[in-house]
Amino acid sequence: MGIDLEIQFTLGVAYLRGPVIAGPAQLLYPVTRTLVQSSRVMNSSSPNFHFPSNKMSDDAGDAWGKPNFLNRHIEARSPVGRNSAFYSMNHKNRGLAIILNHEFFEIKTLKARSGTKVDCEKLSSTLQGLGFNVFSYHNLRLKDITKVIEEAARTDHSENDCFLLAVLSHGEMGILYANDAPYKPENLWAFFTADKCPSLAGKPKIFIIQACQGDRLDPGIKMRTEVDSKDSLGYKIPIHSDFLIAYSTVPGFFSWRNTTNGSWFIQALCAELKANGAHLDMLTLLTFVCQRVALDYESNTPGDVKMHQQKQIPCITTMLTRLIKFTPK
Amino acid sequence: MGIDLEIQFTLGVAYLRGPVIAGPAQLLYPVTRTLVQSSRVMNSSSPNFHFPSNKMSDDAGDAWGKPNFLNRHIEARSPVGRNSAFYSMNHKNRGLAIILNHEFFEIKTLKARSGTKVDCEKLSSTLQGLGFNVFSYHNLRLKDITKVIEEAARTDHSENDCFLLAVLSHGEMGILYANDAPYKPENLWAFFTADKCPSLAGKPKIFIIQACQGDRLDPGIKMRTEVDSKDSLGYKIPIHSDFLIAYSTVPGFFSWRNTTNGSWFIQALCAELKANGAHLDMLTLLTFVCQRVALDYESNTPGDVKMHQQKQIPCITTMLTRLIKFTPK
Repeated sequence: MGIDLEIQFTLGVAYLRGPVIAGPAQLLYPVTRTLVQSSRVMNSSSPNFHFPSNKMSDDAGDAWGKPNFLNRHIEARSPVGRNSAFYSMNHKNRGLAIILNHEFFEIKTLKARSGTKVDCEKLSSTLQGLGFNVFSYHNLRLKDITKVIEEAARTDHSENDCFLLAVLSHGEMGILYANDAPYKPENLWAFFTADKCPSLAGKPKIFIIQACQGDRLDPGIKMRTEVDSKDSLGYKIPIHSDFLIAYSTVPGFFSWRNTTNGSWFIQALCAELKANGAHLDMLTLLTFVCQRVALDYESNTPGDVKMHQQKQIPCITTMLTRLIKFTPK
Repeated sequence: MGIDLEIQFTLGVAYLRGPVIAGPAQLLYPVTRTLVQSSRVMNSSSPNFHFPSNKMSDDAGDAWGKPNFLNRHIEARSPVGRNSAFYSMNHKNRGLAIILNHEFFEIKTLKARSGTKVDCEKLSSTLQGLGFNVFSYHNLRLKDITKVIEEAARTDHSENDCFLLAVLSHGEMGILYANDAPYKPENLWAFFTADKCPSLAGKPKIFIIQACQGDRLDPGIKMRTEVDSKDSLGYKIPIHSDFLIAYSTVPGFFSWRNTTNGSWFIQALCAELKANGAHLDMLTLLTFVCQRVALDYESNTPGDVKMHQQKQIPCITTMLTRLIKFTPK
């Protein structure tokens, strides 16, 4: 274990003023249709998949309240057979990957994020290795982030397997920081729902967030090792499906960054993607990212006993309907 | 498609008063240690797993703020080798499964949840089939839920593979309803962190929530088919690791229940667990539950055009560090 020389997090009160990203992106994509058969089979010895009849009556909801009615008639082409176990990775391109990297901030309470350059370079080269077309942006103000995101949402992703957006920044519970202002992370993914970005409908939309979600610490617990198809021609999907959001830490908690080697989460993610990105499905891979972060890392700040020997666990939220495997192009 | 006769959700304003479950459970477990070697290998042709050195220096955080210091000295025994890819399913028992089923409410704004009896019975028999020791509770008041949860957290789970808690009820954004009062779902899992429930440390803690998270509707979008192993003797884990939380719907959104067949989510979960529970790891299985709910279901309420032909996508959050596979006992 090395010796930690300093604590980089900043002290201060919540900084919650300023605008947040909002509003739908403009739709400019050609929406085309091609019909091909497929079936949800993993391999010849795969388990028994069968689907229930979706005959239904008397549907009700587990809430009170009257929802708003949205009369939508948007259609999108499906990139994969209806019951396929895996997302299609057979498009011309793997897809766009955007990294919003933040080292410096105009907000005076936010300290420089030393080590994030290492994260950004490592993540960029890892994603390029998986075939992504990577664009890194540094220290953007909120209006410029909005521009980048809107442009990404307006892009025609028809020839792409998927989309990825990574944010490396300071954060708080429900808040990420641009160079000059805070914003809500959910406003990032709101641009990419299937209705707003039909050329990504039915494709994985992956969000990676390296940021604190609060200032609580996880002291950990000491462990002692003990042992040891039918396809239909047309169907509807929810507009919020096919999202994968990987947070470096759980809500309310601190997220650790090494000022020399980069953040624990991005280190573990890049290592796991490099070792197993082409072999393992993404949720299995992220489970092992969680294992690496949870077991391999512990804070080392002997000069600050309160921060010393603390642990971290990432928090992965999935609305995926198929498995993601980055088979080589 | 059948014809829906009625909409069961109720109208009203938010009901947010009343106590919430809080406070730690008492620790009564014997904490023992046995040391055995293991390794993280999935199978002979498994991908290359390797771990980075966790030497570190200059650890920093991506937040401002001074965290509280908790000086903990709790230890737990690890149920599995440090780098194992799978959670151990070799304990004497699969574990405790608690179902909190709510059909009727004292809260006047909440309608009876017709169909939940079917969910409860189906889920109970499915979990029994996987070897769980299932306890179902019906229409409990908040103080009784607290008692049940506290007792479960006090139980010695040393001989159990894992723990499961399912809630079938009405809900709102960040809120679940007991018979008489609302509570925060995070107060359910707060009892089972590794420090508060050491006999479940390093074991999967699975939470299944069938409830609305709001009243927003997802109208959907039409798709056209186009076609390691060095073990150390002692190590620390974050106290928040090894949780899996499966929500029937995404935050802010409606969750659908068929008054005859039960909720879409529980129907799909039980079907997938029955078909593949012994063969697939839990995250893969839940991905296919998402696929079933997203593709196979659409609301059918021709008498209420606002609610008609709506979609739903579940939302799975994982802090797991290994794969869960319910290999037969």
